[in-house]
Amino acid sequence: MANVAERAIRTAAEGNQVVMIVSAMAGETNRLLGLASDITDVPDARELDVLASTGEQVSAALVALTLQKLGHPAQSLLGSQIRIRTDGAFTKARILEIEGSKLLDTVNGGKIAVVAGFQGIDDHGNINTLGRGGSDTTAVAIAAAIRADVCEIYTDVDGVYTTDPNICPKAKKIERISFEEMLELASLGAKVLQIRSVEVGMKYGVPIHVRSSFSDRPGTIVTGEEGLEKVVVTGIAYDKSEAKVQMINVPDRPGVVASVFGMLAEKNVSVDMIIQSPSRESGSTTDVTFTVPKADLARTKENIEECARSIGGAAIEYDPDIVKVSIVGLGMRSHAGVASRMFQILAAEGINIQAISTSEIKVSCLMASKYTELAVRALHTGFGLDKEPSEETIG
Amino acid sequence: MANVAERAIRTAAEGNQVVMIVSAMAGETNRLLGLASDITDVPDARELDVLASTGEQVSAALVALTLQKLGHPAQSLLGSQIRIRTDGAFTKARILEIEGSKLLDTVNGGKIAVVAGFQGIDDHGNINTLGRGGSDTTAVAIAAAIRADVCEIYTDVDGVYTTDPNICPKAKKIERISFEEMLELASLGAKVLQIRSVEVGMKYGVPIHVRSSFSDRPGTIVTGEEGLEKVVVTGIAYDKSEAKVQMINVPDRPGVVASVFGMLAEKNVSVDMIIQSPSRESGSTTDVTFTVPKADLARTKENIEECARSIGGAAIEYDPDIVKVSIVGLGMRSHAGVASRMFQILAAEGINIQAISTSEIKVSCLMASKYTELAVRALHTGFGLDKEPSEETIG
Repeated sequence: MANVAERAIRTAAEGNQVVMIVSAMAGETNRLLGLASDITDVPDARELDVLASTGEQVSAALVALTLQKLGHPAQSLLGSQIRIRTDGAFTKARILEIEGSKLLDTVNGGKIAVVAGFQGIDDHGNINTLGRGGSDTTAVAIAAAIRADVCEIYTDVDGVYTTDPNICPKAKKIERISFEEMLELASLGAKVLQIRSVEVGMKYGVPIHVRSSFSDRPGTIVTGEEGLEKVVVTGIAYDKSEAKVQMINVPDRPGVVASVFGMLAEKNVSVDMIIQSPSRESGSTTDVTFTVPKADLARTKENIEECARSIGGAAIEYDPDIVKVSIVGLGMRSHAGVASRMFQILAAEGINIQAISTSEIKVSCLMASKYTELAVRALHTGFGLDKEPSEETIG
Repeated sequence: MANVAERAIRTAAEGNQVVMIVSAMAGETNRLLGLASDITDVPDARELDVLASTGEQVSAALVALTLQKLGHPAQSLLGSQIRIRTDGAFTKARILEIEGSKLLDTVNGGKIAVVAGFQGIDDHGNINTLGRGGSDTTAVAIAAAIRADVCEIYTDVDGVYTTDPNICPKAKKIERISFEEMLELASLGAKVLQIRSVEVGMKYGVPIHVRSSFSDRPGTIVTGEEGLEKVVVTGIAYDKSEAKVQMINVPDRPGVVASVFGMLAEKNVSVDMIIQSPSRESGSTTDVTFTVPKADLARTKENIEECARSIGGAAIEYDPDIVKVSIVGLGMRSHAGVASRMFQILAAEGINIQAISTSEIKVSCLMASKYTELAVRALHTGFGLDKEPSEETIG
């Protein structure tokens, strides 16, 4: 806490007006939610928000006290006090609007404003929280509301890497990355920044500087595309959170496949990759493969087996031991052949691709999870992302 | 928590609309203030209030969840949400006004409203707390705002006693007591109810029922004088929190004594009993005795010794081993001789009275603290307050 306070004071001393957005102390949100789950398994969402929002309120007061102790005027501000208007969706609200004026009054008065993140207030005066990681989103939204030059997000890593350094020692820190690339990397499992905070940054054009709380070195700047070097592949992500479901011998009649996915949507299971093998002859059967979050697999099983019986006895197989490995880069838009280069690299390692999906700036391949490290490292080298040896000896 | 929730539901089932006012969980306020004192010895009062008010916020959410779990609709409400307007005096604010409408909306909708006590919001939107025990005051003020039939205060004792049962086993529970008597007893050390909550109850005529959280038996009803039997002595209080200061041989000139008490007032020392012995001849010296809170004794010593030198070398003696024993009762107004009966009872026990002060419904005597138990028991018996034997065997 003293660490971030000193940094804020240094930033102010350099002539900046500073607004800090704080999250709860480590473990505090879980402690508070634990108090509720001691009472009931199905807690009311409104009361959960009243409870959980105290975590950030405590942090805001303590950080303000720390700044004052270090000699800088400071004031804590709650979501309700600066009118962070939210949509009323308890525990997962979205920010509708922020009244910047109270905040600007505070900083114009020479104080550092310390805002409790993660919370807002709806039109009925209820406290809403933004869901896990909501403090990042609060920070970016406030930066947009007061037209801040930059939104710095302090975290326990020193930036966004070309891939997970834990499995690929040659991963290097990315200096600048576009919002879109960051969205693809974040949603694919590089859990440095909340997806929604990146969306808000993109919408309002607020540059986000992700950096370490423990070091003064620059981190990664997430920004618009202007002036960004459009490299073909910026980063490699992997995601082990999904499981594969295969329906074999599904009657190949109009509407049958749609009914399966309609049922899953109804049960709130979000399906990611879908591959339907072309049927060999009309009126015959087809195979349908798709992935669902592992957390939803039990629910999927329950429902799909009944569904399979009703549509004519398709066999179903499940495989939780899979990984989705993705390459992401703005340069893909203008470079053909990136996907096939990816397949070649994987093939050269003897890796069998079970499914493929692509977007404008991303190619994802599904494979057995045992190949994760091998695939990530091969792609990292194959697309020229490895650290140079000189850097390695310095770093 | 389940205990108070069940009681509230029972009260609602009897056809009442129920508003609960909750305080922080045991130890929570101290834990929160401890976080601040880990940072600084002189914390900003505004931020202390932001911090401390979370204790009641957490309780309100948890009690609402408990009520819901037990099957009764409920909603937590914060000081800011029902507009408990306070005067801006951080950590010791006073309530100016309460907007009852939001609260009435909630209870009219069939819900039990669970209000976070101890907190309000000032005209600038800052959180103010009411100081220790402020939840009692919140409860009585809310009862006044919504014209409640009664304000029940649940505590760990089952009512107000004629004296401290720990030192006088014959003490008995008082069924009804007037606001004024309660004020005298509370300020004299019978720490069952916050003084300010009794003041608010008196101002707005809200009966306060002090009762045990752990028993269904009625406690003590604090109420207006109408219909109260005006007994001569309702209760006996004692207070060991003061120390005696004696200034000997003070020059008996106009303004000298005033200058001593002026200095103490300036240093924020509140002086209680004052006795000036009549001087034997004009131009001679006099002795001045007074009491100050033990907590202020060091500060008093520091200042008074310098003061004594400057006014001409009076000798000063301190005695922290004293107690103030008081009898309180509405009936004193119309009964002469109550004070002298008190002195007789004490004299019969060989107790030397060091100072006396009186009000309309109270007589206090200062004595050596070793006499506390003896004096309280003798007065309790002497003024006819002892439990009847039959009651004793039942109770």
